[in-house]
Amino acid sequence: MDISTILGITFGFGLVISAMSMGGGLAWFINAPSAMIVMGGTFGAVLINYPLSDVLGVVGVARKVVFQKEQKVEKVIGQLVDISKLSRREGILSLEKEMKHIHDPFLAKGIMMVIDGIDPATLSKILYTELEYIEERHKLGAEIFTTMGNFAPAMGMVGTLIGLVKMLMMMEDPSAIGPAMAVALITTFYGVILANLIFLPVAGKLKTRSGRELMVKELAINGIMSIQSGDNPRVLEQKLHSFISPGERKSIF
Amino acid sequence: MDISTILGITFGFGLVISAMSMGGGLAWFINAPSAMIVMGGTFGAVLINYPLSDVLGVVGVARKVVFQKEQKVEKVIGQLVDISKLSRREGILSLEKEMKHIHDPFLAKGIMMVIDGIDPATLSKILYTELEYIEERHKLGAEIFTTMGNFAPAMGMVGTLIGLVKMLMMMEDPSAIGPAMAVALITTFYGVILANLIFLPVAGKLKTRSGRELMVKELAINGIMSIQSGDNPRVLEQKLHSFISPGERKSIF
Amino acid sequence: MDISTILGITFGFGLVISAMSMGGGLAWFINAPSAMIVMGGTFGAVLINYPLSDVLGVVGVARKVVFQKEQKVEKVIGQLVDISKLSRREGILSLEKEMKHIHDPFLAKGIMMVIDGIDPATLSKILYTELEYIEERHKLGAEIFTTMGNFAPAMGMVGTLIGLVKMLMMMEDPSAIGPAMAVALITTFYGVILANLIFLPVAGKLKTRSGRELMVKELAINGIMSIQSGDNPRVLEQKLHSFISPGERKSIF
Amino acid sequence: MDISTILGITFGFGLVISAMSMGGGLAWFINAPSAMIVMGGTFGAVLINYPLSDVLGVVGVARKVVFQKEQKVEKVIGQLVDISKLSRREGILSLEKEMKHIHDPFLAKGIMMVIDGIDPATLSKILYTELEYIEERHKLGAEIFTTMGNFAPAMGMVGTLIGLVKMLMMMEDPSAIGPAMAVALITTFYGVILANLIFLPVAGKLKTRSGRELMVKELAINGIMSIQSGDNPRVLEQKLHSFISPGERKSIF
Amino acid sequence: MDISTILGITFGFGLVISAMSMGGGLAWFINAPSAMIVMGGTFGAVLINYPLSDVLGVVGVARKVVFQKEQKVEKVIGQLVDISKLSRREGILSLEKEMKHIHDPFLAKGIMMVIDGIDPATLSKILYTELEYIEERHKLGAEIFTTMGNFAPAMGMVGTLIGLVKMLMMMEDPSAIGPAMAVALITTFYGVILANLIFLPVAGKLKTRSGRELMVKELAINGIMSIQSGDNPRVLEQKLHSFISPGERKSIF
Repeated sequence: MDISTILGITFGFGLVISAMSMGGGLAWFINAPSAMIVMGGTFGAVLINYPLSDVLGVVGVARKVVFQKEQKVEKVIGQLVDISKLSRREGILSLEKEMKHIHDPFLAKGIMMVIDGIDPATLSKILYTELEYIEERHKLGAEIFTTMGNFAPAMGMVGTLIGLVKMLMMMEDPSAIGPAMAVALITTFYGVILANLIFLPVAGKLKTRSGRELMVKELAINGIMSIQSGDNPRVLEQKLHSFISPGERKSIF
Repeated sequence: MDISTILGITFGFGLVISAMSMGGGLAWFINAPSAMIVMGGTFGAVLINYPLSDVLGVVGVARKVVFQKEQKVEKVIGQLVDISKLSRREGILSLEKEMKHIHDPFLAKGIMMVIDGIDPATLSKILYTELEYIEERHKLGAEIFTTMGNFAPAMGMVGTLIGLVKMLMMMEDPSAIGPAMAVALITTFYGVILANLIFLPVAGKLKTRSGRELMVKELAINGIMSIQSGDNPRVLEQKLHSFISPGERKSIF
Repeated sequence: MDISTILGITFGFGLVISAMSMGGGLAWFINAPSAMIVMGGTFGAVLINYPLSDVLGVVGVARKVVFQKEQKVEKVIGQLVDISKLSRREGILSLEKEMKHIHDPFLAKGIMMVIDGIDPATLSKILYTELEYIEERHKLGAEIFTTMGNFAPAMGMVGTLIGLVKMLMMMEDPSAIGPAMAVALITTFYGVILANLIFLPVAGKLKTRSGRELMVKELAINGIMSIQSGDNPRVLEQKLHSFISPGERKSIF
Repeated sequence: MDISTILGITFGFGLVISAMSMGGGLAWFINAPSAMIVMGGTFGAVLINYPLSDVLGVVGVARKVVFQKEQKVEKVIGQLVDISKLSRREGILSLEKEMKHIHDPFLAKGIMMVIDGIDPATLSKILYTELEYIEERHKLGAEIFTTMGNFAPAMGMVGTLIGLVKMLMMMEDPSAIGPAMAVALITTFYGVILANLIFLPVAGKLKTRSGRELMVKELAINGIMSIQSGDNPRVLEQKLHSFISPGERKSIF
Repeated sequence: MDISTILGITFGFGLVISAMSMGGGLAWFINAPSAMIVMGGTFGAVLINYPLSDVLGVVGVARKVVFQKEQKVEKVIGQLVDISKLSRREGILSLEKEMKHIHDPFLAKGIMMVIDGIDPATLSKILYTELEYIEERHKLGAEIFTTMGNFAPAMGMVGTLIGLVKMLMMMEDPSAIGPAMAVALITTFYGVILANLIFLPVAGKLKTRSGRELMVKELAINGIMSIQSGDNPRVLEQKLHSFISPGERKSIF
């Protein structure tokens, strides 16, 4: 599980909740109609905004944020250098027996096409198209969370307006105004906190993750093209190292 | 009818309205002048903003959101692979008799031009120009709804300011202040809810739909160009599969 | 005169003003210092922001929004097809006698250069540069209105702050607070309504119009280049039809 | 001195200040701590945001807005046409004696390189790189003013919050609340007015000016390249005229 | 240490704090739960938003803002001109002995590849890829600070809502309302001041610095490519001078 997500949730909610419970019960902050408006309104708006399949896919996406491990870039570079050496020593067709050690399906597809003898322009076109549409699908996940992060505070405002209108309509009892207004504000509170501690940060992490994954994939395309054109493994390594920071580079030569 | 739009409307409005009716009549939230200002102001601003024909076109566009079915990508890929096979087996002119099975006018136009022997550069130019201007027209629809989503809350604010000015001008009777202010706030409420439960989500769905449709069209262009250049149907399928996620890919080889 | 602009103004202002006059005099909403601050501040800011010649040009631009008729796309396509036919039948030099029927100066300039025998690369460069700078000049008009739409509510806020400070400074008489605060709010009201019913919608219409005009010009460039390279009139028509929606296409073949 | 800047300042501040002085002393709006917070905070934030040399350079930049005259485009075109004629009549080396009449250092550098016989690709690369980095430096000036325009209202809010906290902390005397709150609002007033009547409009004018200057420079590059390749002066004029509106074009042929 | 950062902090915080302490104790502005909510919430949200390694890297990034010295552009140009001269006089391999004087690792890598005889296209590809990913990593630093600058005021609002709800829930004692509301506002105050005097300006400085560094690196790539292709050192100098303003140019010829 992703350690920074756990830390962030613990830290963020921990401090906010402990501040809420100081000098007053947490129960003051629980209000069913407020939750109904913010949740119902936000999910309603998102359902109108996106096809059902995309919205349901978000559950899987959110799980990915918390549980999926990242590919190690150095490992991918190492593997590509090894493949490159093998290919220069024993010919491109010898890569066939290496295929079972390649677990990343994107890389495997690319190497398979090299073995199949597909010409470089077509190969590059296919892999870059694939990259582009992976990016599109990643973007959609982050975008849905960003959309939720935009609708939640607006729905909070809707709820607060509903509460204020009700309060103002029956203002005979001045002593009831305080608590009524408090309840009205709770909807805004829900909207702001959901947006800023859940929806927007998750959207942010999806973007960061996607950026990292796409970089590894672009690096892989560069490696595959280099292997196909029979580059020297040293040059290949140098090419791929330019994708990562000097501190991460570990040459095997 | 698009299931997620129905669900979204039911869910969103259902919960908001039930929260509104708790502990008070829904009638409190009905106010004709508020509706006049928000609706009148928003449509007025949109009419100044866009030519009349574009605004009227929005009705059709909104209907499309709710009723139109999406093209299945796999079906389009399958059809292109079939055409490719036929073309390689019996020559490009044999596609003429296949034309009656192609129902998508964009695809039909492309294949027709291949049969007519138009050169690849011109063909690609024509189809991409068409794609670009389809995108422009789609964008316009989404943009009009976004514009409405931006003007509605501003008009809500205009209405609230009008209400507040009136209230403050005749503040002799303190007991009337509460209800008067409630009425003032209702205009903002209308503006915010129209924007966030109707205009902006519909704009969002139009964008998502358009993105999907354009992707299918770009895939079709790739397929048509491949058929013209006489690619192997397997390579063609691989090219087109790079547009969709691995889970959706169903090879017919 | 542009019908949707008239409708929009009638509709928008009509409903807002009738809502204002319900249950109170319209006179409550008239306040000279508020108008001075919003108008003076907005025009002052715009004058600092843009050269004088550009600001004065805005008057002409605004008139264009209301009065100018749009070029019909089909007519332009038809004309280009006719020129193309003539050019293939009687040679490019025969276009000279056609020049007097071409009223659009942009199209005329392009055809003139074809007759003058300027090479395609230079021709395309000149026409696209012209297109780019027409776009720049159009953008400036829309941008000035957008700038006014951004400054007006800010100036409204400035006026409200001035009004509030004055009111709070002389708060001895509680009965005067209401009307004083009402006056303070009127400045914000002016700013919001000017921005949302005039400046921003006009900026929007200028953008839409400009987009349409540029599309027609780009179509014209494509046609001119096609005529120069001696394309078949049918292919030329097909090329130009890709700019417009299938419903608008009327083939003359 | 730039007439529209003077007009804008007179107009904007004149009307705002006269509205402030109506029915109350202007002295109400003078408050030293408010000025300290807005000025100090804004300049502090800008100093953290940019290197010292850039911030100091802003003074010169602001002066440029008010005093610098614009290059006349027609004059530049005329000069380029003259150089072009001379170059075709007497050869490129004859331009050497023309150098003393070229006062614009950018144009002079370009012509000098033509005389030095630098190849077109290198020449174009050097001039476009120079253009790009001139643009970068211009952008920085406008950006600093925009940054100030963003920080000033935020600092105004900081000051208002400080004032409100102080007021609420010592609320024993109800009669002091009004003036105390007025003082609190003055900081927001300062922030909003500085941003909207000074910082943002100046940023806007820098952008407009820069756009105009860069256009003239790009036109100059086109002219220089044309002279080097020995274009006909008429074609050169036509090329350069495409940068400006038809109304500004004065052919010398 | 970066003088403008020190000045900015002194200036900004100095004036704000002295304004805070006028007519009231600074102690009024110290509130532990407010600090907990703003700090905890902001760091929590950032931890959910970014991988832990990136967040920890921010500490180093922030230090860099204050302590790192900038590369002098003229020195880099001078060094490249010297290398160019040496290379033309004694051949490319003679650069080997110059390597120990090149301290910038990016430049050193480039020159090393020139000595190794890597072909220009590959060399350019490798260096530009490296540049692109350096830019990505720089952007990440600035982006994290911008994200903190966006979350801090939102968390301030969360805290203020919590405070208001509590206050309204126990409104029996009117004399306690003032101070309770003051405390509620302090959280917003913290959020706004952290965002506008720390997070956003630091993000801004990281961007400015990064831009400068990338410009020097791009200039270096141009120099390296020029050396490889054996350009005249004068032309090389002219090429590199186009990156900087005329005032900074010091020719050594």
